[in-house]
Amino acid sequence: MNILYKSEPERGRIWAELLAERAPEAHFRQWPDDGDPAEVEYLVAWQPPEDLRPYTSLKVLFSVGAGAEQFDYAALPPDLPVVRMIEPGLTQGMVEYVTFAVLGLHREMPRYFRQQREKQWLEHSSLPAARRRIGVMGVGTLGEAVLQPLLALGFDCAGWSRTPKQIAGVTSFVGTEQLNAFLARSDILICLLPLTTATEGILNADLFSQLPPGASLVQVGRGKQLNHQHLLDALESGQLAAAVVDVTSPEPLPGDHPFWHHPAIWLTPHIASQAQPESALTALLENIRRFERGEPMHGLIERERGY
Amino acid sequence: MNILYKSEPERGRIWAELLAERAPEAHFRQWPDDGDPAEVEYLVAWQPPEDLRPYTSLKVLFSVGAGAEQFDYAALPPDLPVVRMIEPGLTQGMVEYVTFAVLGLHREMPRYFRQQREKQWLEHSSLPAARRRIGVMGVGTLGEAVLQPLLALGFDCAGWSRTPKQIAGVTSFVGTEQLNAFLARSDILICLLPLTTATEGILNADLFSQLPPGASLVQVGRGKQLNHQHLLDALESGQLAAAVVDVTSPEPLPGDHPFWHHPAIWLTPHIASQAQPESALTALLENIRRFERGEPMHGLIERERGY
Repeated sequence: MNILYKSEPERGRIWAELLAERAPEAHFRQWPDDGDPAEVEYLVAWQPPEDLRPYTSLKVLFSVGAGAEQFDYAALPPDLPVVRMIEPGLTQGMVEYVTFAVLGLHREMPRYFRQQREKQWLEHSSLPAARRRIGVMGVGTLGEAVLQPLLALGFDCAGWSRTPKQIAGVTSFVGTEQLNAFLARSDILICLLPLTTATEGILNADLFSQLPPGASLVQVGRGKQLNHQHLLDALESGQLAAAVVDVTSPEPLPGDHPFWHHPAIWLTPHIASQAQPESALTALLENIRRFERGEPMHGLIERERGY
Repeated sequence: MNILYKSEPERGRIWAELLAERAPEAHFRQWPDDGDPAEVEYLVAWQPPEDLRPYTSLKVLFSVGAGAEQFDYAALPPDLPVVRMIEPGLTQGMVEYVTFAVLGLHREMPRYFRQQREKQWLEHSSLPAARRRIGVMGVGTLGEAVLQPLLALGFDCAGWSRTPKQIAGVTSFVGTEQLNAFLARSDILICLLPLTTATEGILNADLFSQLPPGASLVQVGRGKQLNHQHLLDALESGQLAAAVVDVTSPEPLPGDHPFWHHPAIWLTPHIASQAQPESALTALLENIRRFERGEPMHGLIERERGY
């Protein structure tokens, strides 16, 4: 078993240690130290090396993340299996991040943090959670998971998806025709949509204008869904009060981008959902075993659908 | 029924509106517009007016908060009943705030927010919640309530209290002799203690030195429990990584206080637990009815115990 890892180096070192314990027979290398490329069988990466031709033994490309739409499929060998990461740590991370972001927006923490910088000690009244309407766009595995703590905290929750979803306590809105009704009752909007041609650029001025005035946004979907200028305009006009943004296009943002120093934007470097080395390695090893036995891998991408 | 309200004005206006709907016979005034002081029967305040002598008809002093130890009892008429606020909104607010703070510290958000200001796009690996040890000092009504979402999120939770507490999934540490063992396993320490002679100044250098290096603090108890300089020293040395501070002594902090601009301190103006006008008014009216019928009020202070 010959694995090449190409992603965040700090996590790579943890993977290396864990793998040495749990699969000592495996060969593990961390990009750019790829040894003999012709020996690499399994590539674990957010983005593969630009030129894959030297990797003549490559059997599977594993995404380090929950998504695999970041790959340029035209540049990949057509018969190379591509697998996205399905492991409980990714979901748990997203649940933590979204719960943090929603509570911060609910309790007006961006406003209090601005006050701190301005040395202002000023209390504002807060709404009960039952009066705060949360809207989750994209109700798949992650969407369902993030709804659970929000429901337990007493928020008024709805979801929007292509097909109706039955989740106790969650109002289900379906398809394009119910989008505006969903937006009109979303004080805090959470985007967890996958990137498709239908969702690219969906977070734009038109969508923001359908939200209640003073609403907030949690963008944890994909970078290309958000129109940066439209978000800035909506914050400027007051249509939006604040935004928590974990994904952008491009990533990283250029140094002169206004998100870096915007007082109403909390920007994080695509860390909402991080694979947890232990559970991710378990999932990877299980998938490699399945591949070697000719069994179907979890998270295998159907290239035509794109996810 | 003649009520004088002396606290945050924005909330006072909401109380006035709600009371007009729900008890139109009541007279409600908001400090400093106290009309004829001799007519005031019920005073609802965080701090009463300095001179209470003109309030010759005063029957009860209601704290707007969960605590009532902020009053200078020596300055109050000795037979004036003092009542603290017991209402579900206060607990819910604390649960929201502590969950927000713990998730923020767990996911190193103070570090990411510093990176944002410095235009750094840099990912750090995160721990699974099961590996993050939370310690709650003070396991009363509020402590038990804040533990519930933290348990549901998968954190490793313990509590420290004067008497043993049985809460499913929570390790109970008891009394002075088990304090150091409790601290040694608290990566994120939450202070929810009442203010007593035993807890004044308890959050000091000695206590911080018992925590695991790089631990974090959530201070939602009472201002006089925290030694400000010792917190700054512990952050400086790295013994503590970050702190979320909602209560200080004095409040507000003076303009030149280092907490205002400290990169590892999130400072909020005593808003963790805010009475929610609707549920607080329900609790107040119920207590006034009880008082008028000669029944015991909820939250009546035993002055000798101090809470």
